Amino acid sequence: MIRILTSRMPLAGDVRLGPGDDAALLADGTAITVDTLVEGIHWNHRLSPEDVGWKVLAVSVSDLAAMGARPTWALLALSLPEPLELGWVESFAVGFSAAARRWGVSLVGGDTTRSPGPRFASATLGGRAPARPLTRSGGRPGDDLWVTGPIGLAGAGWSWEAPGPAALAALRRPDPPLDLAADLVGLASAAMDLSDGLSLDLRRLCAASGVGADVQRAALPGHAELGPDPWEIQVAGGEDYQLLFSAPVVNRDAIALAAGHHRRVVARIGAFTTGDLRLDGEPWPRLGFEHFRRGDA
Amino acid sequence: MIRILTSRMPLAGDVRLGPGDDAALLADGTAITVDTLVEGIHWNHRLSPEDVGWKVLAVSVSDLAAMGARPTWALLALSLPEPLELGWVESFAVGFSAAARRWGVSLVGGDTTRSPGPRFASATLGGRAPARPLTRSGGRPGDDLWVTGPIGLAGAGWSWEAPGPAALAALRRPDPPLDLAADLVGLASAAMDLSDGLSLDLRRLCAASGVGADVQRAALPGHAELGPDPWEIQVAGGEDYQLLFSAPVVNRDAIALAAGHHRRVVARIGAFTTGDLRLDGEPWPRLGFEHFRRGDA
Repeated sequence: MIRILTSRMPLAGDVRLGPGDDAALLADGTAITVDTLVEGIHWNHRLSPEDVGWKVLAVSVSDLAAMGARPTWALLALSLPEPLELGWVESFAVGFSAAARRWGVSLVGGDTTRSPGPRFASATLGGRAPARPLTRSGGRPGDDLWVTGPIGLAGAGWSWEAPGPAALAALRRPDPPLDLAADLVGLASAAMDLSDGLSLDLRRLCAASGVGADVQRAALPGHAELGPDPWEIQVAGGEDYQLLFSAPVVNRDAIALAAGHHRRVVARIGAFTTGDLRLDGEPWPRLGFEHFRRGDA
Repeated sequence: MIRILTSRMPLAGDVRLGPGDDAALLADGTAITVDTLVEGIHWNHRLSPEDVGWKVLAVSVSDLAAMGARPTWALLALSLPEPLELGWVESFAVGFSAAARRWGVSLVGGDTTRSPGPRFASATLGGRAPARPLTRSGGRPGDDLWVTGPIGLAGAGWSWEAPGPAALAALRRPDPPLDLAADLVGLASAAMDLSDGLSLDLRRLCAASGVGADVQRAALPGHAELGPDPWEIQVAGGEDYQLLFSAPVVNRDAIALAAGHHRRVVARIGAFTTGDLRLDGEPWPRLGFEHFRRGDA
């Protein structure tokens, strides 16, 4: 769908990186992204209005983190049913403003419209990219493959019948590793955020870098709530908003050091190869947490 | 609603103008705005998918024009029902890309989501503002009040039973006076775009500038399709995406010259005062084309 839209439209010289990565980059170093959450599709009764306010900003922060960029401003578009529930708006604002403070984002404007159907919340986020931003396309065969973690918790929070408190917190209040991501600039060779689950997102990262990958189940960073053998929810579950990235082997120690500094969990889950995608040597599973959620950028 | 959201959130030093005007301004001279069109609220069977594609960009171009800014990039968020109608997307893309070429805009990214209800199209537009951008707040008593025109056509296209071709074209393919707006920088004292109709929008402009206004019906720029006495649709009808602006009397000739250069219709419809808003000396009518359409910025 995105391809239909963009194929007709040439990019001007002031655009450095257009559709196809986590965020777009302009020639002046601005990074921009947009994400929409739709009631009934991206959130249900497990999320309060405050959670939705937090999350609509967090998912865009995650996109900028995946480029190694720092968010600065946001625009918010809300479509709400009539009659307007001011209590909902106020609760949403509590969560949104908490997220804005967390990541140093100024809400500079927005648009409110009436919806004849469900609620829609869409955030556009802008920020500053580094001189050599992280992209999806820089990975090479032989590079280590890393994720920040834990992964699988948010998927459990979304889909399990009785998820634990950590799983619900991961679903409701994603905390993308923005701080660590900035330190990965110069260390990582390719990066993207984990929004639709490792199964789909690793395919995308490998396609963009033109590589395959070997991944080890046992290396996936887990959590006590996920039980002893959680690989299925870890591979198929989305919404983690952790970082998936590759890096030359020589950067192992520097990455571990940066992660420790920011108290973030990182795990080396495998390596890029010249072959296909494999999980413990088997063909990569076709599990998906696809809720027609996101296009590119 | 916007006030609830923004009151909790302090603006950082890199924001020059936050919510409350047609677009936000960053300290680096970037102007940004977002607008959402919702099926059944902002468009109906009178608009084709191509029209919607054109219009979602045009209404944001209108916001930037109101600041005297030049658009450069856009992000597009689409929420569409399943199963996905690719024909709809392709038609939408034809209209959107025509508008992007018209105004020199690069589509740099976007987001596609599933909607369990109507279609939603939301465009974020960024551009360059001049050193002294047009705002809503610079008007002074004694300034002339101007509009570009015609006005009222789009309102007729929206609400009349059998509108003429010019009215339908104005509704379907708004053509904000971006070219003229750039030349009004330094000439106009205050400006905004006409989206919700003169009745509501002039109230907003006067409130922002802290003035009143006297307006003459006979001076409102009309069109043959609107008949001999069209003031009601001209005052109450929205969706014109023309420019409403004030200017010192001394700039009359320069404004007429600039309008002629760009082949745009301008009309001097009255003046700012220290009193109330008045139409031909009577209290300003409370007619509204409010479809809970837009917040500020």
